[in-house]
Amino acid sequence: MHHASDILLTLFIVFIAAQIGSEIAQRLKLPGVVGEIAAGCVVGPSVLGWITPEQVATGTPLDVLAEIGVVLLLFSVGLETRLEDLKKVGKVAFLVGVLGVLVPFGMGGLWAHGNGFDWSRSLFIAAAFVATSAGITARVLQELGALQRTESKVILGAAVIDDILAMLLLGVVVSLQGGEGVDLIHLLAVLGGAIGFIAVIGLGGARVMRWNSRWLDKPQNPNSALAIVLALCLGLAYVSTLFGLAAIIGAFLAGMIASETRQQHTLEKQTQPLLALLTPFFFVITGSKIDLHLLADFEASMMLLVVTLIAIASKLIGGYLGALSLRSRSAIIVGFGMVPRGEVGVVIASLGLSAGVFTNQIYAIIVAMSLLTAMVTPPVLAWLLRRPVTSTDTPS
Amino acid sequence: MHHASDILLTLFIVFIAAQIGSEIAQRLKLPGVVGEIAAGCVVGPSVLGWITPEQVATGTPLDVLAEIGVVLLLFSVGLETRLEDLKKVGKVAFLVGVLGVLVPFGMGGLWAHGNGFDWSRSLFIAAAFVATSAGITARVLQELGALQRTESKVILGAAVIDDILAMLLLGVVVSLQGGEGVDLIHLLAVLGGAIGFIAVIGLGGARVMRWNSRWLDKPQNPNSALAIVLALCLGLAYVSTLFGLAAIIGAFLAGMIASETRQQHTLEKQTQPLLALLTPFFFVITGSKIDLHLLADFEASMMLLVVTLIAIASKLIGGYLGALSLRSRSAIIVGFGMVPRGEVGVVIASLGLSAGVFTNQIYAIIVAMSLLTAMVTPPVLAWLLRRPVTSTDTPS
Repeated sequence: MHHASDILLTLFIVFIAAQIGSEIAQRLKLPGVVGEIAAGCVVGPSVLGWITPEQVATGTPLDVLAEIGVVLLLFSVGLETRLEDLKKVGKVAFLVGVLGVLVPFGMGGLWAHGNGFDWSRSLFIAAAFVATSAGITARVLQELGALQRTESKVILGAAVIDDILAMLLLGVVVSLQGGEGVDLIHLLAVLGGAIGFIAVIGLGGARVMRWNSRWLDKPQNPNSALAIVLALCLGLAYVSTLFGLAAIIGAFLAGMIASETRQQHTLEKQTQPLLALLTPFFFVITGSKIDLHLLADFEASMMLLVVTLIAIASKLIGGYLGALSLRSRSAIIVGFGMVPRGEVGVVIASLGLSAGVFTNQIYAIIVAMSLLTAMVTPPVLAWLLRRPVTSTDTPS
Repeated sequence: MHHASDILLTLFIVFIAAQIGSEIAQRLKLPGVVGEIAAGCVVGPSVLGWITPEQVATGTPLDVLAEIGVVLLLFSVGLETRLEDLKKVGKVAFLVGVLGVLVPFGMGGLWAHGNGFDWSRSLFIAAAFVATSAGITARVLQELGALQRTESKVILGAAVIDDILAMLLLGVVVSLQGGEGVDLIHLLAVLGGAIGFIAVIGLGGARVMRWNSRWLDKPQNPNSALAIVLALCLGLAYVSTLFGLAAIIGAFLAGMIASETRQQHTLEKQTQPLLALLTPFFFVITGSKIDLHLLADFEASMMLLVVTLIAIASKLIGGYLGALSLRSRSAIIVGFGMVPRGEVGVVIASLGLSAGVFTNQIYAIIVAMSLLTAMVTPPVLAWLLRRPVTSTDTPS
């Protein structure tokens, strides 16, 4: 009858590690998420080895729990986001999204080519510099109660644009590997599908809910509205993957639709316990994928340092330039908000490895870079958001 | 980036199936859980085949989600249960637990021996008649708001006794298979360990919390008490498996300890969304393990019918006799409450199959019996609990 023993121990380890890490981080005036990722690093192969890479591989129970955790996180962020507010920052968000993709892609490609890779491989490596992982920034913004700030709206809008462009770019670089050349019509169809999906679901769903959400109420069951929107969340998370987008984009849309209902406030409260249980899995498991042994080798660690600096600087520059119409500090916040690559970078690196494009070393460095950007961003972002506004932060 | 696509679709199917099934059941005045199990049967191999047996095998993501679901369910049931109330019904619960094990074990053993199995195999088969799965009854009681009734306390207390005895019995029959004979000292040690674990955690934990639970409060984070008790829940669920008990026993204890805190009411509310998200996985997946094709063969379906009737009658008789000091109707409710074998029967059948003791046919029949008892119980229990008390229900 103790068939479930091992997995229960693992769940306990991950969960308690998250609580301890988060507690320590908060006492150090850092966002809790930093502590959760660091705790993952400690229980992972870097230090204790209680969580092995095999246990968190794609499709394992822990991987699925982590996925559910980040899906729920973006759902809850969507719940705090009104479509109207996103529309207001539409132009800035678009610019941030586009420049936040182009600058890292360009700088990443140049670095790779400068390190002796041919152009087709260099562009694949460059693609791994591109995609922002919205989960980490979203969590920091939520933790600091900053989701209603203009910078946050810009970051969230830009994250959607970023995901669309990153998907297209990945499509291009993958087809370049085969030497096939790029099928422009196919690309346009993919672009159209993704934009159409987001537009139809986002605009249409929000309109339906604003028009009438009384049907979600069932007096005898206070959880029925929650169950319906959770079904919507899982459903849209799945459908968005069909359009080549990340699952969290669909979850974010589902949350945004639900934010238009009269139950929005109740739903927000009900989502909190779900986040408390499930998001630690995402962040601890993200942290557990960092293998510090990589850094033992001097040459590799130098390369990692350079790659990470390029990844941070390029996103920061792209985001900053895109958001220049805001105050200068706001533009910096937006830029930093786009820095984390997190699990998206890991996924692209895995694709590159299995396609035989990446060497093991490049793979390891890209993975480490993705996770390092995820580690570095939260404290900086928290510091920027908490710092009082001074007279030098005048609008540009 | 759509690596998580397949599992998201599966999660969506399971979740939406649960909602539809539950809705239909409630319109038919049945407990929602019946609809969830039936929905599992529909999406499982019996009808649609969208959920395959491989997808729900031990250790798969769906299996782990189901396990988390039932652990949280028993945690929440514990949260509504005070140790004092359990103590009050201690004697009855003990009798129900003991007789509810002995009668099914006896009748199951006789049936197996009558069907040509030697005694050592017959006793193993008999063990599969024994263990009650508390999850299904607990859900029905919770759905009907009946957890505060005396019958419910007796059932919960008896479920703990049942699990201890079933574990011991399984230990005995497994060792009999090897022809080794029974190591009495080892058995006593196991018994002592299990009882000691429950006593120390239950009594000690409840006392600590009653004495002081203010330390669980953290004004800046309303979820901190929840996070701490969830960690306790996962931790005790794991530790109880180390003592040979089911994970849900530890989860129940954790809930009961938490019910002594000043945060009990808040915790109950916060647990609701967790149940809404995760318990459907347990019930739908339980239902998806039923394969109706088994019933196509006349001989097998007759045997299944007999086995299921023995399983129901023997538990009912044992529970009823144990609870005779209550009113006659209450004793019947208690008896029926102990009927579901659910996933525990499935686990024992799997043990028997892998130990080479069970034939494929016996395995399939025991699994089907376990799941049928889980299907049959909720409507009967709901009917008994809802029926108004009449003058014939006088105390005996």
